Amino acid sequence: MKQEIRILGVDDAPFVPHTHEQVMIIGTIFRAGTWLDGVLRTHITVDGNDATHSLIEMVNKSRHQEQLGVMMLDGITFGGFNVINIQKVFQETGVPVIVIMRKYPDLSGIKMALKKFPDWEERWNHILEAGEIYKIDKIHNQEPIYMQTSGISQEDAQKIVVLSTTRSAIPEPIRAAHIIAAGVTTGESKGNA
Amino acid sequence: MKQEIRILGVDDAPFVPHTHEQVMIIGTIFRAGTWLDGVLRTHITVDGNDATHSLIEMVNKSRHQEQLGVMMLDGITFGGFNVINIQKVFQETGVPVIVIMRKYPDLSGIKMALKKFPDWEERWNHILEAGEIYKIDKIHNQEPIYMQTSGISQEDAQKIVVLSTTRSAIPEPIRAAHIIAAGVTTGESKGNA
Repeated sequence: MKQEIRILGVDDAPFVPHTHEQVMIIGTIFRAGTWLDGVLRTHITVDGNDATHSLIEMVNKSRHQEQLGVMMLDGITFGGFNVINIQKVFQETGVPVIVIMRKYPDLSGIKMALKKFPDWEERWNHILEAGEIYKIDKIHNQEPIYMQTSGISQEDAQKIVVLSTTRSAIPEPIRAAHIIAAGVTTGESKGNA
Repeated sequence: MKQEIRILGVDDAPFVPHTHEQVMIIGTIFRAGTWLDGVLRTHITVDGNDATHSLIEMVNKSRHQEQLGVMMLDGITFGGFNVINIQKVFQETGVPVIVIMRKYPDLSGIKMALKKFPDWEERWNHILEAGEIYKIDKIHNQEPIYMQTSGISQEDAQKIVVLSTTRSAIPEPIRAAHIIAAGVTTGESKGNA
């Protein structure tokens, strides 16, 4: 595992639920877990189905794309229930994907919430196809976190997560993306991601 | 000098010159030179005279304000020729100010450019009142940089600049503010600040 691996961390900005407005998506590019090397930005629709396409486009347009070793998403849904198809993201960008979850997801609750959408089965399939949910035990004595992956082994993904989790319970690229997205949108980030 | 000092780094986003449009200002809050702790955002007018007021308001509204040890500005003008009155910023926020310049400023060129504004004397006075321009010799063998200060001694300011310059020729809080402002505004930051 190269210490200088470039990691893209992705999170969404705060938004008003159920509005179909645009919500900002921020990508941070870090070397290892410490050096912010670049920031990407796109938009998706609240509760829409454009997050997969927008994420792929953001990555493939970036001049950093060739150098990215992996991307980490703060959950598999952005802007409410705009679900990411992580298999497709890996296939179309060539960059392996790690979905980070702070808690074990409430899958039956998510399924129930998705059922209000006409295309709920497609959204639900994106979640199922993201595959096994792995637990990562307390890094630096923090609470355990969970991950799903595409294009990378559990072992390699876990190494990268641990390497990049230098300051809190979650990897730096995601923590920074959260702080930036919130700060830019609201005028001030609300501290620890 | 506490290693955990909170530093606010401020830079403006790219903008179209001479437009009187709004330009985004980003503030990053770092502990020492390494941990991004928060992001602030405001707007100013290209070539306007509202940068001093907007900066003061951004700092004083922030829940981080009490903890800020110092702020660093990427130059004394934002959004073209919207000049910051750093004495006033220090007086009204209580936070010492360090202006960072990558090159020794071309003062006669700046004065000439300012003369197209009816209130050019006030703008020029802000630059003069920012006081002596100190050279900081090559940190980590980088090119020298320059600074002006308000509310802090040359010696202390220099210590903080060196402490926070961990990755490039300029302090991390300013480098990150530059990357974030550019990335959010254009969709992708253009690499090294």
